[in-house]
Amino acid sequence: MKRIESTKNPQVKQWKKLLTKKEREKTELFLVEGFHLVEEALKSNIVELLIVAETKTIPTSWKVDHIPVVIVTEAVIGELSDTETPQGIVAVCRHLQWNVADVQTALFIDAVQDPGNVGTIIRTADAAGIDAVVVGEGSVDIYNAKVIRATQGSLFHFPVIKGDIGQWIARFQNRHIPIYGTSLQHGVDYRSVAPSSSFALIVGNEGSGVSEQWIKQTTANLYVPIYGKAESLNVAIATGILLYHLQKK
Amino acid sequence: MKRIESTKNPQVKQWKKLLTKKEREKTELFLVEGFHLVEEALKSNIVELLIVAETKTIPTSWKVDHIPVVIVTEAVIGELSDTETPQGIVAVCRHLQWNVADVQTALFIDAVQDPGNVGTIIRTADAAGIDAVVVGEGSVDIYNAKVIRATQGSLFHFPVIKGDIGQWIARFQNRHIPIYGTSLQHGVDYRSVAPSSSFALIVGNEGSGVSEQWIKQTTANLYVPIYGKAESLNVAIATGILLYHLQKK
Repeated sequence: MKRIESTKNPQVKQWKKLLTKKEREKTELFLVEGFHLVEEALKSNIVELLIVAETKTIPTSWKVDHIPVVIVTEAVIGELSDTETPQGIVAVCRHLQWNVADVQTALFIDAVQDPGNVGTIIRTADAAGIDAVVVGEGSVDIYNAKVIRATQGSLFHFPVIKGDIGQWIARFQNRHIPIYGTSLQHGVDYRSVAPSSSFALIVGNEGSGVSEQWIKQTTANLYVPIYGKAESLNVAIATGILLYHLQKK
Repeated sequence: MKRIESTKNPQVKQWKKLLTKKEREKTELFLVEGFHLVEEALKSNIVELLIVAETKTIPTSWKVDHIPVVIVTEAVIGELSDTETPQGIVAVCRHLQWNVADVQTALFIDAVQDPGNVGTIIRTADAAGIDAVVVGEGSVDIYNAKVIRATQGSLFHFPVIKGDIGQWIARFQNRHIPIYGTSLQHGVDYRSVAPSSSFALIVGNEGSGVSEQWIKQTTANLYVPIYGKAESLNVAIATGILLYHLQKK
């Protein structure tokens, strides 16, 4: 088994570059950290390489005979981790591929930059039984370590794709599937729309909301009423309320 | 105007102790940081003292004639802040007092430790128009800086109290107001309960859920169905879905 001790090793430097969006897009690879998330990645058959701290062992229940393993020092793991207390295991993974041709229910995320919010929104859409999430331009990268952590594994078993929201709106319009924006200014109370088995919902940036260019193209724009003195709802909370109302199960 | 330059100043050390729960409980004081939150605290008349970095100025729109101001170095502000980029203003505030005798709708938070979750739950309960939030033993302190930030100001204008959940359950039972727990194991689909203008909802720790002792005393226990492969919903998301369903507005 290969062993690397130095954080200066060229291979380590190459892996470390995967902490940047640019390198992830160039190589179509990304890093997954921690036992629970690496296990989820293994189930999705996207793991190219396992990097394990010398103080840790791979659980015997994992089927990893076909996957190369590199043993490293804790210092090397520290270089590849974005957490303060790394768990000692990192996987180099291929980007996920999904067939989204027949999607009936979708969530479009427009320019949400907070990784915790995007990850929680993905986890919530998965729980709500939505078919796919499309993450548009201007949002945080879905392969960002904080996003992956906040999805709690949903990223590995649920279709999340990067896409052009304009193209996706056109696609849903062509298929006569309603598209709902979210807008406090030009919206209707979300409860005025009946649950359905096919729809798209667009949620946007907490500060500026969904882009005007998409708001103009929707079937209707919805808002969640604020009854108290809070100025707004967190975008992930609003998404949860809207998806659980809209989906017909 | 008083001026303090040294982080070793005894007064600074005293303020810094307010970053601990113990000192906050002893003195019934807490710190609020940043222009937006300090402005909200001023509106609630709980500010005892303003601590301002020498590089910053108090907005002219603030009515602070009656409040003592201390000018300090950025280093002193850094000592009192739990953020990486302090905004240069901190207020020493008195704990909030609320009259909760006539509460008709309430949310009880049982042992939720993540400050971001507790803050977001408080903000969501405020938005949903719930009358009060009771934070029980074993939850993070409501005057923790991260909780305050995540409430986005709701803590200052919305009744959030520390309390004994057992006593609150008894109080609601005596008033014949239904109490709903949340439980994946022993619950019913939340949509089987009709919206109402008086109820209490108990939400619990993401790992272990609501304590068994409370689950046994409820009118019913509810769950939010998981349709996809996600293992669970984030507790703040589940709270948002439940409160917006339960409250009758």
